[in-house]
Amino acid sequence: MKNFVFYNHTKILFGKGQISAIAAEIPVDSKILLIYGGGSIKSNGIYDQVTDAISDFDYYEFSGIEPNPTYEKCMEAFDMIDELEIDFLLAVGGGSVVDAAKFIAAATLFDGEDPWDILAHHDEVTEALPIGVVLTLPATGTEMNGNSVISRVEYKEKLSFSSLAVLPQFSVLDPQVIETLPARQIGNGVVDAFVHVIEQYLTYPENAKVQDRMAEAVMLTLIEEGPKVLANPADYNACANFMWCTTMALNGIIAAGVPQDWTSHEIGHEITALHGVDHARTLAIVLPGVMKVMQESKREKLIQYAERVWGITGKSDEETIDAAIQKTISFFESMGLKTRLKDYQIPSTTIDEIVDRMEARGSVDLGENLQVGIVEIKKILEVRY
Amino acid sequence: MKNFVFYNHTKILFGKGQISAIAAEIPVDSKILLIYGGGSIKSNGIYDQVTDAISDFDYYEFSGIEPNPTYEKCMEAFDMIDELEIDFLLAVGGGSVVDAAKFIAAATLFDGEDPWDILAHHDEVTEALPIGVVLTLPATGTEMNGNSVISRVEYKEKLSFSSLAVLPQFSVLDPQVIETLPARQIGNGVVDAFVHVIEQYLTYPENAKVQDRMAEAVMLTLIEEGPKVLANPADYNACANFMWCTTMALNGIIAAGVPQDWTSHEIGHEITALHGVDHARTLAIVLPGVMKVMQESKREKLIQYAERVWGITGKSDEETIDAAIQKTISFFESMGLKTRLKDYQIPSTTIDEIVDRMEARGSVDLGENLQVGIVEIKKILEVRY
Repeated sequence: MKNFVFYNHTKILFGKGQISAIAAEIPVDSKILLIYGGGSIKSNGIYDQVTDAISDFDYYEFSGIEPNPTYEKCMEAFDMIDELEIDFLLAVGGGSVVDAAKFIAAATLFDGEDPWDILAHHDEVTEALPIGVVLTLPATGTEMNGNSVISRVEYKEKLSFSSLAVLPQFSVLDPQVIETLPARQIGNGVVDAFVHVIEQYLTYPENAKVQDRMAEAVMLTLIEEGPKVLANPADYNACANFMWCTTMALNGIIAAGVPQDWTSHEIGHEITALHGVDHARTLAIVLPGVMKVMQESKREKLIQYAERVWGITGKSDEETIDAAIQKTISFFESMGLKTRLKDYQIPSTTIDEIVDRMEARGSVDLGENLQVGIVEIKKILEVRY
Repeated sequence: MKNFVFYNHTKILFGKGQISAIAAEIPVDSKILLIYGGGSIKSNGIYDQVTDAISDFDYYEFSGIEPNPTYEKCMEAFDMIDELEIDFLLAVGGGSVVDAAKFIAAATLFDGEDPWDILAHHDEVTEALPIGVVLTLPATGTEMNGNSVISRVEYKEKLSFSSLAVLPQFSVLDPQVIETLPARQIGNGVVDAFVHVIEQYLTYPENAKVQDRMAEAVMLTLIEEGPKVLANPADYNACANFMWCTTMALNGIIAAGVPQDWTSHEIGHEITALHGVDHARTLAIVLPGVMKVMQESKREKLIQYAERVWGITGKSDEETIDAAIQKTISFFESMGLKTRLKDYQIPSTTIDEIVDRMEARGSVDLGENLQVGIVEIKKILEVRY
């Protein structure tokens, strides 16, 4: 096992009716900026629940955060925060809204020259406005980690930063929010969480046994509950299991002491940046290629994954690995996500474009062994085009 | 899944050499009370590592914390804390030392009349001195929770309290500390952690799938790694897996949203209070009886446990449950723990004494369904006497 530091102080309020508890979690006399996306929280009743809960506070609203939240939109919040002396951000939404709140929180107190440097040059974020979260879409795990991904339209860039300073103070996870989600967002959420686990699991053996089994616990549960949620998002128990899986997939627990990959995410972000494909869909496209192309360095864990997650036994190593990749693809497709670039009408010329962009930015030598270079990135995208 | 709140802000520093990192985790200008037990940390080098790490601080020592730490001993720390204006407690030891530090931390700032009320009357603990931990014996999980168990010699009582206020600020887990532990403490640690998991798992089905599988992850790993650590405590990888299991067993992760039992602990504490038997050994005595006597209300989870943890299949329900209980007993015995009261030369008259004490104190209606009353407690102790 590798040495590690685990530190995650987000307070999770999980279950039915927990939105009403948030007032007690926000410092008295806070001036709150309520950050949200489009109008869905108004039509599904969450907006009313939240505003009822914080009715004793001074609060203002900043809405219109889009999927793949943009730097440009985030920057619009600053004048408001400054003028109104906002000192608490309450993000009500999915990963995009929470990630936007994190960037706004960090950029507000950033003492460098240009907040873009947080993303472009990984300038360290040491302080940020406090953030509370009411999660409306389980998927990214952002509600219990310090990560944020922001796009800059002007540059067609999608970049990330990570800091404990933007770890939410609290996150409300009420599985009832899933009931009104479109099937597309449910499928995306299941696949997103699944690939998060894979990125921290499918590497080389590190003999971190409880982490491995906990990673498998999340994957097995997503495989079991994902289809139930898709079939009936009013199934509270299935939704609760799905929702807690998405948080556990990326809160540091399964990452403690193990190597990590993140190749699928790095390449996936390029596809979103260039063609606006949903994040989870880019992962569904890229991961099978990563499994196939990098199978030599991932051999032992691929076989463990095949056996423990998919119950594949009694085959040769090659057949076992192929079967595991096929099972993964079928699972993604069953969640409604196509797994090939061309399924999204993306021309094959995009592959070279991605490779060139990543090379130009120096985003190569990816993966747990830094073995995913330009040649491998190209192969990963071509192998199942 | 039940509604739950999960909040655990202990920072874990895990791995080789992490003791040297503690200075950065203690507030500058702290006046530290270094709390430890007997002399073992002096002979195994941990004392030197710790005092080197905090050499720039003002620190004082309070030693001699015994196994099953006593109220009487803890109370001796107060004058020192007061006179020296101690504002940080650094516990270096196993569960006993950490639990003592927690009680001292809470009692120091307790605003009631008598700190004993924290234990005897569950008076709420809302503030405490900050605590740091260097763990020298993986077992109880106290390094990442707010629980503490304290005995009062005068009354022959062993009682517990729990408060987020005594959650350690940080805990160092260096698996190398295991190398010098006696086999008895290793065996105790493995069984203690295993029973912690069982108390949060072997109840009624709550459809909390990821929690169930994570609980099984810890048990499977303890079963796999426990014997390796016992055979060779210099096996770093096995020790690391064992150590992280003991923390994960009781840091709230597997408890989130599920019912809990704790019958074996409640009864076990009585055996320790009356006969001084090691805590883990009392659990090894009591748990098989709980499984046997309460099998009707635990039937579904017992069968799941049998199948997933012990791989028992193809038998009738009765045979499956019996086999699972037998496997559990054999595992405990293989760790060096006897599992019957009479193995410890405890007379059968102790059973009535325990029942009477628990009845007098009102410690009945135990378990996840409050179905463990006086009759059941007696049966649990008698069934395998």
